[in-house]
Amino acid sequence: MSKIYADIINIGDELLIGQVVNTNASWIASELNQNGVAINELKVIADTEDAIFKSISDSKSSIIIITGGLGPTNDDITKKSLANYFNSNIIFHKPTYDQIVSLFGERNYKITKSNKEQANIPHNCTPLLNKHGTAPGMWFDRDDQVIVSLPGVPYEMKNLLSDEVIPRIIDKYNLNHIIHRTVMTIGVGESRIAELIHKWEMKLPKDIKLAYLPQPGLVRLRLSTVNENYNESIAELNHQIEMLHKIIPDIIFGYDDITIEEVVGNMLKESSSTISTAESCTGGYIAHLITRISGSSSYYRGSVISYSNDIKINQLNVSKNVIDSYGVVSREVIEQMASGGRNLLKTDYCIATSGIAGPKGGTKDKPVGTVWIAIASPNHVISKEYHLGKHRERNIRRSALIAMNMLRQELSVE
Amino acid sequence: MSKIYADIINIGDELLIGQVVNTNASWIASELNQNGVAINELKVIADTEDAIFKSISDSKSSIIIITGGLGPTNDDITKKSLANYFNSNIIFHKPTYDQIVSLFGERNYKITKSNKEQANIPHNCTPLLNKHGTAPGMWFDRDDQVIVSLPGVPYEMKNLLSDEVIPRIIDKYNLNHIIHRTVMTIGVGESRIAELIHKWEMKLPKDIKLAYLPQPGLVRLRLSTVNENYNESIAELNHQIEMLHKIIPDIIFGYDDITIEEVVGNMLKESSSTISTAESCTGGYIAHLITRISGSSSYYRGSVISYSNDIKINQLNVSKNVIDSYGVVSREVIEQMASGGRNLLKTDYCIATSGIAGPKGGTKDKPVGTVWIAIASPNHVISKEYHLGKHRERNIRRSALIAMNMLRQELSVE
Repeated sequence: MSKIYADIINIGDELLIGQVVNTNASWIASELNQNGVAINELKVIADTEDAIFKSISDSKSSIIIITGGLGPTNDDITKKSLANYFNSNIIFHKPTYDQIVSLFGERNYKITKSNKEQANIPHNCTPLLNKHGTAPGMWFDRDDQVIVSLPGVPYEMKNLLSDEVIPRIIDKYNLNHIIHRTVMTIGVGESRIAELIHKWEMKLPKDIKLAYLPQPGLVRLRLSTVNENYNESIAELNHQIEMLHKIIPDIIFGYDDITIEEVVGNMLKESSSTISTAESCTGGYIAHLITRISGSSSYYRGSVISYSNDIKINQLNVSKNVIDSYGVVSREVIEQMASGGRNLLKTDYCIATSGIAGPKGGTKDKPVGTVWIAIASPNHVISKEYHLGKHRERNIRRSALIAMNMLRQELSVE
Repeated sequence: MSKIYADIINIGDELLIGQVVNTNASWIASELNQNGVAINELKVIADTEDAIFKSISDSKSSIIIITGGLGPTNDDITKKSLANYFNSNIIFHKPTYDQIVSLFGERNYKITKSNKEQANIPHNCTPLLNKHGTAPGMWFDRDDQVIVSLPGVPYEMKNLLSDEVIPRIIDKYNLNHIIHRTVMTIGVGESRIAELIHKWEMKLPKDIKLAYLPQPGLVRLRLSTVNENYNESIAELNHQIEMLHKIIPDIIFGYDDITIEEVVGNMLKESSSTISTAESCTGGYIAHLITRISGSSSYYRGSVISYSNDIKINQLNVSKNVIDSYGVVSREVIEQMASGGRNLLKTDYCIATSGIAGPKGGTKDKPVGTVWIAIASPNHVISKEYHLGKHRERNIRRSALIAMNMLRQELSVE
């Protein structure tokens, strides 16, 4: 089967002059690509009819996805331009209007004249009903080519692309479904993972592709395969993932884009355990990660953040002598912080951090980036030292992820 | 003067298939635009010689900025392609090599053969020395057009563009310097600001342009002017900003892209005051905002995060009767939390938050998004109720910014 190519065209001056980062293009490209469509070009153009005409005429790709310029105001000219380009009449489309009415009913809004006009569409397009906004998507067939126009609002665009556009593209071009599973890893860098799993990777069946997708503090491993039999593909991917898990069990924390805070949250919920934090260098960031999960109040009780020594001493019950003898960034202090936080806040587990986030404040013995992390559990306290470099925000984020992963490992054992 | 147009071309498969969001394009577009260059098109293309040739040949703009494909590995083909396109010989460029040597000396790295090859450049380009990486930028003049190639690493690209490319473009096309000042506002939405400052905006001198740049929880107001006399322009902008400040003094928290946490941090440092937080619904996010500023340990002492009522009662000294009578999301409780946190942690100021972040947990009386915020100061406690909608992460962020702004106002008065 020959490759099917797509061009993605995003319309809008706010993108063109860099006021807004064009996240739509990469999202659409990634979705199409994961479904077996190759990408030829991403393009941002001005909202003029000339620029729209030229970009469509220039494209030699089978698929053109256009976003933006579908709003109700005067500077939204995409619909009019496409109607002109395809020599269309504009007609009133009752199902689109009904959709707008039901959307507005839900939100208790009044429908204005310009809202109603959103239901006017070129007669020769297939309208794509937008469940989250007033601008319908439009699908134009031209011989073997398809031109799709979607709203620029990311939420509306994403739903329309996933629900309406991708399935039609797969049908039209008879694409094989590409099936993915993602393995989430933490704690080890991309190149070290590549070394560890080299043998396994070399033996992967030819129809399975592996991509390393690093993010700050994490590496996602994406396995993809093309197969007309969905169950067979999933079984094959799962078999490979099982073998991978045997090689790097400690660094795999989950699958398919789950976050470490969700994984840990689910484990705490399942074991009906509670958690608190006693943070110094991470300054509340771990508590924030935990509490940004909806429902975290069922396992998270609270935290003490102790930047100053006397809060460590008075609240967390760290011994002043220990601080004086070992320094505040030490195994002795971090373990007392974790135990103290656990006792004070009456939780099953407590995460503690103490370190020099930087960029200032290091010494020769304890350079910037030195971080101690401890987990107090019902039966014991574990702790470990890390060296994370000089970048403050990165240190805070990396420390938090490492701490969450230490807790995950602790919860797995018990 | 007729407009000078630029095209921006980013090369790379990781951009094309959406693995990486193309932040380079918007950054370059914004920089060029702020210096008086109009943008014609942003384009992402594959790393093939064909795609590179075609994108340059197709461009009718005066300026073409190309990024990516300058690394030392085999799939980096931009330099070779440009050399072919411009019929160049590749020559060894000693100053570029010296720059690489000095860079590697700093970092204590050994120079490999492929590093040394980075100093080979097309004979007919002007090399642009890269102080932060091994790949030099390349500037090709062709009649009235200029083609610039820069590395794709954002840090290297940004420094080269600002230090080497923009000044040369201003010279070559004899552009007027555009001067900007940004007014940072918080607490009021874009459309309400537009109403409040309408009269002032209508009276702005014609050569001053105003842009509204909203961000989550903030609106930046950017004033720009073109004038050959720098001091005159700055004086004119400052005069307008003074008048603007008289109209909306409460919502302006700073200038020129400072953050609210930096502003508050500077105010605390200047008054030698200390701060703590007693967070419930924001779950540590305010502490995180404060502590991500380097040097915050001089004014930030710590926090108690109290998701559970008994931490509010036992640590923050909130009365159980008050919780039972008024509910935990109430003026009475939030004021006790702020006072209790201030006393416990021995700080001059304490920020407290309590609310229903959502998406679950609301009642008819107190729907999701209800948030109480209090500031305890040396002399009194102030508090206020907000209704922020149903989106959990947005509620947390907005609550935190509102709280920081309440503290800023409190610090301004005293």
